[in-house]
Amino acid sequence: MIDFSFTEEQELFRQALKDWFERNLPLEKVRENDTKAKIPKELIKGLADLGLLCMTLPEEHGGAGADWVTTTLAAEEIGYWDISIALPVFFLVQASWGYVVDRYATDAVRDAVLRKAARGEAFIGIGVTEPGGGSDVAGFKSTMRREGDYWIVNGEKTYISGTEECKEMGGGYFCNAYHDRSKGHRGMTAFYLPIDAPGVEVTKRFDDMGRMAISTGGFTMNNVKIPLEYQLGEEGWGFYLTMEGFDAARLLVAASCIGAAERALEIGMEYIKERRAFERPLAAFQGIQFELADDYAKLQAVKQLVYKTAWMLDKKYEKAEQGKMPDRSMSLECAKWISMCKLLAPQLAFDIFYDTMLWFGAYGYTKECPLEMGLRGVMSYCIGAEGTMNIQRIVIARELLGREYTRAR
Amino acid sequence: MIDFSFTEEQELFRQALKDWFERNLPLEKVRENDTKAKIPKELIKGLADLGLLCMTLPEEHGGAGADWVTTTLAAEEIGYWDISIALPVFFLVQASWGYVVDRYATDAVRDAVLRKAARGEAFIGIGVTEPGGGSDVAGFKSTMRREGDYWIVNGEKTYISGTEECKEMGGGYFCNAYHDRSKGHRGMTAFYLPIDAPGVEVTKRFDDMGRMAISTGGFTMNNVKIPLEYQLGEEGWGFYLTMEGFDAARLLVAASCIGAAERALEIGMEYIKERRAFERPLAAFQGIQFELADDYAKLQAVKQLVYKTAWMLDKKYEKAEQGKMPDRSMSLECAKWISMCKLLAPQLAFDIFYDTMLWFGAYGYTKECPLEMGLRGVMSYCIGAEGTMNIQRIVIARELLGREYTRAR
Amino acid sequence: MIDFSFTEEQELFRQALKDWFERNLPLEKVRENDTKAKIPKELIKGLADLGLLCMTLPEEHGGAGADWVTTTLAAEEIGYWDISIALPVFFLVQASWGYVVDRYATDAVRDAVLRKAARGEAFIGIGVTEPGGGSDVAGFKSTMRREGDYWIVNGEKTYISGTEECKEMGGGYFCNAYHDRSKGHRGMTAFYLPIDAPGVEVTKRFDDMGRMAISTGGFTMNNVKIPLEYQLGEEGWGFYLTMEGFDAARLLVAASCIGAAERALEIGMEYIKERRAFERPLAAFQGIQFELADDYAKLQAVKQLVYKTAWMLDKKYEKAEQGKMPDRSMSLECAKWISMCKLLAPQLAFDIFYDTMLWFGAYGYTKECPLEMGLRGVMSYCIGAEGTMNIQRIVIARELLGREYTRAR
Amino acid sequence: MIDFSFTEEQELFRQALKDWFERNLPLEKVRENDTKAKIPKELIKGLADLGLLCMTLPEEHGGAGADWVTTTLAAEEIGYWDISIALPVFFLVQASWGYVVDRYATDAVRDAVLRKAARGEAFIGIGVTEPGGGSDVAGFKSTMRREGDYWIVNGEKTYISGTEECKEMGGGYFCNAYHDRSKGHRGMTAFYLPIDAPGVEVTKRFDDMGRMAISTGGFTMNNVKIPLEYQLGEEGWGFYLTMEGFDAARLLVAASCIGAAERALEIGMEYIKERRAFERPLAAFQGIQFELADDYAKLQAVKQLVYKTAWMLDKKYEKAEQGKMPDRSMSLECAKWISMCKLLAPQLAFDIFYDTMLWFGAYGYTKECPLEMGLRGVMSYCIGAEGTMNIQRIVIARELLGREYTRAR
Repeated sequence: MIDFSFTEEQELFRQALKDWFERNLPLEKVRENDTKAKIPKELIKGLADLGLLCMTLPEEHGGAGADWVTTTLAAEEIGYWDISIALPVFFLVQASWGYVVDRYATDAVRDAVLRKAARGEAFIGIGVTEPGGGSDVAGFKSTMRREGDYWIVNGEKTYISGTEECKEMGGGYFCNAYHDRSKGHRGMTAFYLPIDAPGVEVTKRFDDMGRMAISTGGFTMNNVKIPLEYQLGEEGWGFYLTMEGFDAARLLVAASCIGAAERALEIGMEYIKERRAFERPLAAFQGIQFELADDYAKLQAVKQLVYKTAWMLDKKYEKAEQGKMPDRSMSLECAKWISMCKLLAPQLAFDIFYDTMLWFGAYGYTKECPLEMGLRGVMSYCIGAEGTMNIQRIVIARELLGREYTRAR
Repeated sequence: MIDFSFTEEQELFRQALKDWFERNLPLEKVRENDTKAKIPKELIKGLADLGLLCMTLPEEHGGAGADWVTTTLAAEEIGYWDISIALPVFFLVQASWGYVVDRYATDAVRDAVLRKAARGEAFIGIGVTEPGGGSDVAGFKSTMRREGDYWIVNGEKTYISGTEECKEMGGGYFCNAYHDRSKGHRGMTAFYLPIDAPGVEVTKRFDDMGRMAISTGGFTMNNVKIPLEYQLGEEGWGFYLTMEGFDAARLLVAASCIGAAERALEIGMEYIKERRAFERPLAAFQGIQFELADDYAKLQAVKQLVYKTAWMLDKKYEKAEQGKMPDRSMSLECAKWISMCKLLAPQLAFDIFYDTMLWFGAYGYTKECPLEMGLRGVMSYCIGAEGTMNIQRIVIARELLGREYTRAR
Repeated sequence: MIDFSFTEEQELFRQALKDWFERNLPLEKVRENDTKAKIPKELIKGLADLGLLCMTLPEEHGGAGADWVTTTLAAEEIGYWDISIALPVFFLVQASWGYVVDRYATDAVRDAVLRKAARGEAFIGIGVTEPGGGSDVAGFKSTMRREGDYWIVNGEKTYISGTEECKEMGGGYFCNAYHDRSKGHRGMTAFYLPIDAPGVEVTKRFDDMGRMAISTGGFTMNNVKIPLEYQLGEEGWGFYLTMEGFDAARLLVAASCIGAAERALEIGMEYIKERRAFERPLAAFQGIQFELADDYAKLQAVKQLVYKTAWMLDKKYEKAEQGKMPDRSMSLECAKWISMCKLLAPQLAFDIFYDTMLWFGAYGYTKECPLEMGLRGVMSYCIGAEGTMNIQRIVIARELLGREYTRAR
Repeated sequence: MIDFSFTEEQELFRQALKDWFERNLPLEKVRENDTKAKIPKELIKGLADLGLLCMTLPEEHGGAGADWVTTTLAAEEIGYWDISIALPVFFLVQASWGYVVDRYATDAVRDAVLRKAARGEAFIGIGVTEPGGGSDVAGFKSTMRREGDYWIVNGEKTYISGTEECKEMGGGYFCNAYHDRSKGHRGMTAFYLPIDAPGVEVTKRFDDMGRMAISTGGFTMNNVKIPLEYQLGEEGWGFYLTMEGFDAARLLVAASCIGAAERALEIGMEYIKERRAFERPLAAFQGIQFELADDYAKLQAVKQLVYKTAWMLDKKYEKAEQGKMPDRSMSLECAKWISMCKLLAPQLAFDIFYDTMLWFGAYGYTKECPLEMGLRGVMSYCIGAEGTMNIQRIVIARELLGREYTRAR
């Protein structure tokens, strides 16, 4: 039965987050992190204490056993407080990829990284993109071959979030590679790659346009020995688990962008009520009011879409057994909805940062106004982290029209 | 607790509507109604038999006691089947204004019109707009003065939906007029105007751009005697009841536009899969796929917004006593959300009709293709029936910024 | 040297048009033509007397020897006065296709149709689209085969402008057909098809969404004997001459849409200055002012684009010899610019009609307000007459990126 | 007579710029300047040698006597080469404000700053914005009072381009202040403020979002003695000269944005031809092609608008006598057109940087890809340098509707 209310527990949780962040992450702190290009340790510890890190993991594996609606709400809240999007990245990468790793992992992997990550003592990320191909997962070049109880992995990954954090805190990445290219998508297998495994070398940190406080880098894998117990899921499942992780991550990306956009509107509204021109507050001009009304309405619409999609993801996983891939048709339906969220939310958030910056005039262009770091931050999710907008369009069109019409071209 | 599923009862109801409309209202029929500028009697009877007419009225007053989520679902479904928007107008005007009339009416009014309207034997509409002012309700000129047990009403109403239907079927209108202009908004009182009351004269039928099957006209009131038992609510409530009715109607407008847009996408998708150019189906071109993906995603977002708003309206009325105005702060919050629906849904539906028409090429421009009557139809709700887009923006901005910033200018 | 001024002669010409149309084609007349679905004879005669019909033809062939800048100016002016777009269609089809026919015609064709068309005593149109393919010219099915001094033509054309006018006034069509499909584009030859040739049968008139005063229909060709002197250009040139004609026509389409949009803004501005709401003229609200400013600015930008393109077309033809195809690289450059005009101008005009209609509220939705026939009219050029928007995008992208990237898919 | 060709001299000039910039300002240099937050001296010297600095000044005053079409062309070219927009700012501020200063200056001012600025040995800027008011010039607080042969000036200016450059190179600012607030706009007088005048203190440099290589700062004026010979124009002309300067500057802003956007499309096209996904170059996907086509078409349209406006500005100044204000009605017409350029060009450039960045995926988000500095740079002209977008809309609406409708609200 249609119900748009959160449970009391969820409301209390949200309020607890609000209280904590208000005290611990004012916008000046966010700016400071952006400028220093670093998420402070105490912030990470705070997240762990709040039970946010890897909150999607079952309690018995160190998480909070949170459902996706609640995790979405958390992602939104974190985006609201850190509009630079650095902390949202740190949070959501682990909440989503950590979850997928856990679903298909052995206890060895859980002990090696997941339990620690949930305590803020390690970082679990996603290492899929390769120099030669972003969107086109099937075009990847990394290879793995069996050798006794090990996979021997070679290849290079790039545009990987959190490489510096991972090096510093310990932890590793969900990766996949081809062992049998002739099998196409079914020739890839996923595994957990510890960042400190011999043969792994972290490459340069990119100087990004925004979300500066979290690193983006890459790594090379040179005959890296991955024990079989670090394999994730069955042989040949690598592509599908990657898609599963992308879905979870994209949902949270959308939620974080919603949160950031909500903050932008609040910051903007506060300003236009105070700032005067031509003897009236800016808020009294229809030219600004109408833009606000349009932006706010679109934001509420996309927000409901995100909630619905979170609810669908919960349904999907309700019926999925640990270690088994979820029902295919539910997965595809979820993928369609998640792609809609990822398509609309970052772009809308970007537009809202742009519009509100304009209300500020020249001041909005300076780093004294928080909005510009928001615009730079959400741009990372417009441009493609966790999948470009065009990839989302391809997924949606494929599910609507049928695969026969959309062999991407 | 967040839940996006309909009850089994709602699903069965929706399926029943689908079955009936599929048999009784194919697109050729819709076109025929549009061309003949008439909703056939048997269609109205069908609606009555399905329990759709005035479905929001309590069962004891002849309705189906339907909640707003269910009524929204019905409005969507009717928009889906009659993309010309004529039948949706017929349906939603009565479901919304009939409801408000009933909330504040005496049994005399119920007997005079509501019970009949629910059986498809009368029409209950909204007669508020005046020649001198559309959006600016306070600028209206109609007057009423007490004389014994009557109000004596003078004035003119225009751009009124359903005047011909009302004349033919019997019934009347929710109206209001000023009895004390010095009191501003509080100087208006609402009443039920029977179309056949002495002194009422129906003026010309407008030749509209679309939704041709339902009439738009007007009427003059020349010393019309309205018995006190036809007064709706208390003296001075007229403006507020009007707003209450607009809210209900706007929600259903949005839902109908969503339904029509869904149909447009279906019609479009069917076509692009079949039609070929440059040796491939149109559906295989990204230029079209991406437009489809964007439109579909936006439509789903706005649809969730509409559902949420329907759910909010149910909450508002749950707590409201018959004959009393609902809680003011809930009403204002609902008004904000409803304005968001009315702002986004008709415009999006229009865009979707436009986009899909373009896929059809020259054929789409002819009346052999159903889409053009959809574009013409939803335009009525973009341009202002039940409130212009700018009025929605003013409502939203007012609720966000505060009344002090938005004394409309 | 950059110069945006018209010659004195051009200014006088424009003024003469203004004077004549103001007297002879007020908006009520346009509405009447739209309703009666007919361009009155005296209007056609007026156009002929003004020297507008086939004005691009050399004087010695009955035209006015007008250059493209002047013809563009005329198209804009005609669009301004007949916002329903019916008269613009009648004008521009002949000015463009008549010109191309003349460039490659024998005197036999000139005597048969062009001289008469220039006097308003015949109609010369374009008959290219076929039931199976709109944009994809190469997918056409009509065939021609040599038999002595004749081509024997078979096939069917559809969505052809002016079939009823042509039947009534006499005249015919620029057509092409395949004589050797194995040669692809080079296997088509163009010819003049008299509408009254034995074997030609005009098919039904379509009931269009707009521009009602001019007919859209089709014709079948059943073993039609076309004398060789009706062949246009050399054998195998059919495809190229078609593209040449499309270019000329698209330029004038864009100009007409510009003119219609200018009128819409004028009609809108007049109204918002008079109409009051909330105690002020609508024109005093930023919500409307800003929309006007945006629309007006875009319109001026696209208008300059159209003028530049007209100037380029004059350059192209300056260097082209009668009967020879113009320089290929200039043609391709012109095609790119013309596609930009055709892509932007109709869409912008549509948006402007939409925006201004909204200023009118409910009145704008009725046929008492002239704008709705404008919206319906320009839609014909958005949807595809003389080439869909996507075809324009393909041409532009092809010229920018190179043919190897854009074998339409 | 309509002519879209440049003179041979202009073409040679453009080519000379291209040659010089290609050698001296590759994109890596632009990035370096952006990172180092400094325009290198040799670059300024190069501009001077090319005759670009203050090129609008008469030759006898040290300039190149360039007309506005040629200056526009230069601004476009500089924007093309320095997409970070820093050099365009340095160039255009001086070309426009230097010109206006010169028109109303005594030889004392010319000797003090203009001749030097034209040699790259001083900087002449615009110092109008104040802490309390950006768009609302009339709301300024700076005051001036006569004392013998001096004006004594007090006040503060902020968001002033080039304060650090000015301090380093010498030079000063076009300023104005109120001497008689009761006269409103007519109570302001303009003057030249040397940056090193006693009582002037340069305030902090802002940390801007982009165009880092040129500084933005402010200054306070504390009883600064301005000799009468530094007064610009007559008493009470301050407001009008400010508007005159804004017009010139806004035109060049638009031209620079056009140039930058052209470069972005070139950079983007080069990339999509090389980069492959799903076994094809990105350039072969309609999803990207169509976006390119739309962007390119809009860019060409706005570019012609800019050229037309430059041509109009030449007309305006052709008839204006040195030291006298130009014809009022031509000025207002020019202001309207210039506001259209400033409204459309920066926004379009921003959109184009955004779109092309997206083609690059994750790489586009790093500082290895030049586009992100372009997006950050043009944002400065979207947000308001030389006037916000809303101010442009107000100017356009005012000229279209009449002043009575647009007393800004």
